[in-house]
Amino acid sequence: MHIPEGFLFSAIACGIRKRDKLDLGLILCQNKGVASGVFTRNSVKAAPVIIGKKHLRSSVTRAILVNSGVANACTGEDGLHRALKLIEETAKLLKISPEELLPASTGVIGEPLPVETIIPKLPILIETLSTNNYSLFAQAIMTTDTFPKIVSKTTKDGIALLGIAKGAGMIAPNMATMLAFILTDASIQKEDLRSLLVRGVENSFNRITVDGETSTNDTVYALASGKKQVDDWDDFADSFQRTLRELAYLIVKDGEGASKVIRIVVKGAKTKEEAKILARAVAESPLVKTAFYGEDPNWGRIFASLGKTGIALDPSEVELYLNKVPWIQNLKPQGAEKTFKEELAKSEIELLINLKKGKQSYEIFTCDLTEEYIRINASYRS
Amino acid sequence: MHIPEGFLFSAIACGIRKRDKLDLGLILCQNKGVASGVFTRNSVKAAPVIIGKKHLRSSVTRAILVNSGVANACTGEDGLHRALKLIEETAKLLKISPEELLPASTGVIGEPLPVETIIPKLPILIETLSTNNYSLFAQAIMTTDTFPKIVSKTTKDGIALLGIAKGAGMIAPNMATMLAFILTDASIQKEDLRSLLVRGVENSFNRITVDGETSTNDTVYALASGKKQVDDWDDFADSFQRTLRELAYLIVKDGEGASKVIRIVVKGAKTKEEAKILARAVAESPLVKTAFYGEDPNWGRIFASLGKTGIALDPSEVELYLNKVPWIQNLKPQGAEKTFKEELAKSEIELLINLKKGKQSYEIFTCDLTEEYIRINASYRS
Repeated sequence: MHIPEGFLFSAIACGIRKRDKLDLGLILCQNKGVASGVFTRNSVKAAPVIIGKKHLRSSVTRAILVNSGVANACTGEDGLHRALKLIEETAKLLKISPEELLPASTGVIGEPLPVETIIPKLPILIETLSTNNYSLFAQAIMTTDTFPKIVSKTTKDGIALLGIAKGAGMIAPNMATMLAFILTDASIQKEDLRSLLVRGVENSFNRITVDGETSTNDTVYALASGKKQVDDWDDFADSFQRTLRELAYLIVKDGEGASKVIRIVVKGAKTKEEAKILARAVAESPLVKTAFYGEDPNWGRIFASLGKTGIALDPSEVELYLNKVPWIQNLKPQGAEKTFKEELAKSEIELLINLKKGKQSYEIFTCDLTEEYIRINASYRS
Repeated sequence: MHIPEGFLFSAIACGIRKRDKLDLGLILCQNKGVASGVFTRNSVKAAPVIIGKKHLRSSVTRAILVNSGVANACTGEDGLHRALKLIEETAKLLKISPEELLPASTGVIGEPLPVETIIPKLPILIETLSTNNYSLFAQAIMTTDTFPKIVSKTTKDGIALLGIAKGAGMIAPNMATMLAFILTDASIQKEDLRSLLVRGVENSFNRITVDGETSTNDTVYALASGKKQVDDWDDFADSFQRTLRELAYLIVKDGEGASKVIRIVVKGAKTKEEAKILARAVAESPLVKTAFYGEDPNWGRIFASLGKTGIALDPSEVELYLNKVPWIQNLKPQGAEKTFKEELAKSEIELLINLKKGKQSYEIFTCDLTEEYIRINASYRS
């Protein structure tokens, strides 16, 4: 793996929620980094989201500090004070200004961030900073995730990109309960990084759904160390987009309890907005998601979920394709049920819905809904 | 139980989907009945919905014919022909006009209604019509329901009301996969029955959600035999409303896999619409519903679901009450976790959310989300 130049990583276990689980991670940019961020649209915003937005106004960013276990959301003034205290202490030890540090948190909402326990451990966090500890950082930000999510890319110019993310529930368009960090050694203007990130998030993290929820803490930060000249901008932009899309894919793949990733494409819509509403309705339908889990080619549920949007459509015109195999045309299955059961038994499924009304399309990734999702979420805190 | 005068009921097993399950039910009004109906807002409408709407234009209604097993939705022209054929044959045997019969269907979408099998059995259906067979009718319309849903009321004037419904999944505001039939022996004008029904549905079936789905077949018919004079209109209207609300409650209680009924009330909102959006967001949140199932007082999920609507709110102002017990004020639990766990262990729960921003309120009923919901829906067809 090709790690972008200029970054150090570390992670430690502070016992924020569970003993011996890595729960605090730090990324240090060794020189004056340039950063951008995109945050949750939930109107209830966690303390680190409020602070992160403010700190992004600084022209220089040097560090990202993330904890798991406690979201520091719905914690009011006290939550802000605790987050700021932790940032100040970390900045002091790193000899940077507090505004140069971006915070993020994930975990249970409504509980206080135990800064008393965390602060005494900061010196160890800083002493253990190293280039290779990126995978420990990826582990430290996990909650119900079953695997760390790391993507790396190198452009033709030799510019490196490293993406690290966590999922895995409360995932829905307009971000997700997800944190993602995109690091690169490219030399880039703050405004260019912002436009890349905003467009990238729209085509990646805003196109995944696990359960239709939107968290209080969703955060994507991009941080560039500026070590390398970008000669081929298109190639760099493309690698940046692919990094985000691959991270988003890993999040759905690790959706809570998920056994399958389903790519849903609505094409032939009159407008982009119509395609998006219909794709999202199918992707979020519990009846469609349980049918995928049961590997049951119950196509009527797909039609019912399209219709519940209220968007006018003629069912006899709508065509379905499963993994490119023609499935439904003129309201009739185009083959034996067995064929479609076999397609649904795969762990990666593509459902194409052709409305044949226009030229617009939209793509979204979802997962199936299983008993395991219920088990995880009925007992997440215990 | 006081059955409205002028109605006969029957039900038989035609093997539409399962052998020996009652799957065809008939209600006959012995004189010239007056009817009204409310239907799904799903833009994909089943054949019986399209026909039912048309037949309601007739000034006289004499019968309601309902099958379970096959929804006759997404069946195109062929579906309409099959439904009309069944209606014509039944009307002929009953010696009524086809327009005087209202149809309804529930079951799997996209499969043909097996009229060839049903029609030869119609004579038995008609021969067995009797006053007492209303409970057989209630059983015949069940799909994944675990119990028949029957409500009866008598006004001070001695007017009888009988409500029969089926749930139990695909339930969401704007009706549900639900069928409901309200019968009364009141003498009432068609327009008055319509206004009672529209208002009643808004305050009952449109206030329940099991899984946020809206079916292709939702239908509520009201049918009055006109045998009795209404002297006290308010008392009659009130009994009518309560019949609908009690039926709606039974549907949530029997929500697929549900172990608890949860009444969610949002008060102190600036507008009714705001209260409705917030109440619905909480009622449909899979994370809130799984926390209720796990009896976990994870109040942060309630705040996160309020916030995901994007409606501006100050979390520190929002108060939560669980079964009238103060739960959260100023972002702090108002008692030991044990207290709230005990409240959540009950099978009927009331969650009151006070926004303290205005004077508007909204109420909705939901249920918890359990592994059983997944099991039912991953294998519904098999």
